[in-house]
Amino acid sequence: MAVLHFPAGFSFTCSYSREQKLRIKVGTFSRISTAKVSGKIPRTAISKYRRMVSAESMAEIGSITKTRTRQNIPTKKQLIDPFRQGIIVEGGVGYRQTVVIRSCEIGADKSATLESLLNLLQETALNHVWVSGLLGDGFGATHGMVRNNLIWVVTRMQLQVDQYPTWGEVVEVDTWVGASGKNGMRRDWLIRSHVTGLVHVRATSTWVMMNQQTRRLSKMPEEVRAEISPWFIEKNAIQENTPETIKKLDNTVKYINSKLKPKRTDLDMNNHVNNVKYVNWMLEAIPEIFLEGYQLFRVTLEYRRECGSSDTVQSLCQPDEDGAFQDEVQDDNGKNHKEQSQVSELEGDASSSGSPLSFTHLLQMTGDSKTDEIVRGRTTWKRKPWLFH
Amino acid sequence: MAVLHFPAGFSFTCSYSREQKLRIKVGTFSRISTAKVSGKIPRTAISKYRRMVSAESMAEIGSITKTRTRQNIPTKKQLIDPFRQGIIVEGGVGYRQTVVIRSCEIGADKSATLESLLNLLQETALNHVWVSGLLGDGFGATHGMVRNNLIWVVTRMQLQVDQYPTWGEVVEVDTWVGASGKNGMRRDWLIRSHVTGLVHVRATSTWVMMNQQTRRLSKMPEEVRAEISPWFIEKNAIQENTPETIKKLDNTVKYINSKLKPKRTDLDMNNHVNNVKYVNWMLEAIPEIFLEGYQLFRVTLEYRRECGSSDTVQSLCQPDEDGAFQDEVQDDNGKNHKEQSQVSELEGDASSSGSPLSFTHLLQMTGDSKTDEIVRGRTTWKRKPWLFH
Repeated sequence: MAVLHFPAGFSFTCSYSREQKLRIKVGTFSRISTAKVSGKIPRTAISKYRRMVSAESMAEIGSITKTRTRQNIPTKKQLIDPFRQGIIVEGGVGYRQTVVIRSCEIGADKSATLESLLNLLQETALNHVWVSGLLGDGFGATHGMVRNNLIWVVTRMQLQVDQYPTWGEVVEVDTWVGASGKNGMRRDWLIRSHVTGLVHVRATSTWVMMNQQTRRLSKMPEEVRAEISPWFIEKNAIQENTPETIKKLDNTVKYINSKLKPKRTDLDMNNHVNNVKYVNWMLEAIPEIFLEGYQLFRVTLEYRRECGSSDTVQSLCQPDEDGAFQDEVQDDNGKNHKEQSQVSELEGDASSSGSPLSFTHLLQMTGDSKTDEIVRGRTTWKRKPWLFH
Repeated sequence: MAVLHFPAGFSFTCSYSREQKLRIKVGTFSRISTAKVSGKIPRTAISKYRRMVSAESMAEIGSITKTRTRQNIPTKKQLIDPFRQGIIVEGGVGYRQTVVIRSCEIGADKSATLESLLNLLQETALNHVWVSGLLGDGFGATHGMVRNNLIWVVTRMQLQVDQYPTWGEVVEVDTWVGASGKNGMRRDWLIRSHVTGLVHVRATSTWVMMNQQTRRLSKMPEEVRAEISPWFIEKNAIQENTPETIKKLDNTVKYINSKLKPKRTDLDMNNHVNNVKYVNWMLEAIPEIFLEGYQLFRVTLEYRRECGSSDTVQSLCQPDEDGAFQDEVQDDNGKNHKEQSQVSELEGDASSSGSPLSFTHLLQMTGDSKTDEIVRGRTTWKRKPWLFH
């Protein structure tokens, strides 16, 4: 029942061997590569930096103690957290947090952005672990996981937005966990309007454990299972008979956005590009004219590997030509046909008979002529609400 | 006692004249320019979009009513807001909100980013107006301002960080307003640790009113003064004997970051680049190697004009060579000299005798060969805390 670095199944470690050689490891599920940094940072700078980091390690212990006092992480289960406005629900295993949508969380249309919704999911998941008394260290690992050197990695995420929360709206975010296979965990969320009680957002995700040193996936140790399995329940925020598989795109796609490069402010506490950034990169490949009339209804993400701060990323995007939207929203068929004709006009493309309302996405590395998959994605779009009236 | 679109003194309006010509106005303090859009969006698309927007206007009334129900903006002064965890303090005129630092608000060093601090200031300022019962419409204007077609524009902002809040830390944000000259308003903030009671952050800002249609600065109408002046108090978060003036940089500066372009996700509800983004652009011009060892201690911003979604921006940055840091932190003199020598080594620049710990910044437009100032800035930096031990 813990969530570690939401971004992806990766971490960036900077260590010093006995020979004082600076090694930077970029790990993935299956491989570790040692990147050369000397080409980018002057040798003298590395030498000075090494001395600084050494001083840092010594002073950090005191600093960590102070930080822990300020954080005040509970060591026992809390039924209520007045500061987070969180309570334990679902017979003692689920978590509900009341949240007000902030002014910085809304976009040009005054409703919550996809980015802020994803951040809200991450926040409530971590707070669930926080109030459980199980939070060991770092970004959501339990005490047992810390002892076993394990971290959580997300492998899949699906989000469906029925209505975007508006600025100042009070919402209740429910989150809970369940088993996923033998060694995995499922985490689900529901975001409801506090005033109307209607569900705005549904989301589900799957997680596995990885050894922080070896960067290999791990079975769930018994002591960790003993910690988290009492929190597991059978309940799904999104009903999926067969989870769709996302096909891999190649460079023949309609839209490509290349040379995407993370900025310092895009990195999270693991020195990784945050997965919320990944979604933004995906959407930036979609033409602006389409986004003006449509809003995201559903997004599915399959995480493959992460990208570090020095990687360059390519965002590939292919619209569906086969009317996939009809399959997904079966009860709204008549309206879909009307929508499609309007999109054709919007795009100024008279030749296209049926316009896309779903897209397949791929983010991949572009550095060093080899291409590595980061995330595969599928997005489905609906007309903006006022256009339905 | 209201804050309108924090970003800057600008707004982006899209209107239709009787002849149904699409006019897009980009306003500044002193001028209105009509931008040609047909060169960027196909003519057919504009024609279809026009019809859609017309349908939108009719349906929007119903949509606004629903949104207001979900927002539930108070029409009378509230002494307490349980959802925002806000209370009225300072004898009935100040506002205090308890906030937990979220996981998405921290950077690689696990402490709050400058961006999240600025967002927190914006949020609490707006919530102050929210609980006051004065919030009329839009991004913080009072009822009287709405009747007079006025919006708030920020002209200056200063922030000083004594300690960065950490992930999960509970902080109390105090904010209050005061007079600034005859027609302006000052808004100040203090962010304190809930556990230690120590002040983490101090900030001050000045605001004036602008007519939304004419884009000209306005005197404060008497009915607005009657609304907000009862909230004014004499209290300063930062003591400044003489506010420093920031010199204008030119293209001979040491660091230039050109071709900065806003992404869709950088725009706020006014279709403007959010001012938090401005600060990020400023900092991106500073060399990475410097930022690894230092953290921002103070930032001062002077807003001149805004930039729209289609503008290209240049970030200029000049380090101080005259040891400005010593003047600012007088009680820490010995340590500064040590810091300076380390920076020289870090930068691998043996020739520099005194290294910069303050920078002057300028963001300016680069489009169409004319350069327009957006923001002038000054930043002052301290060694990261663990390096002091």
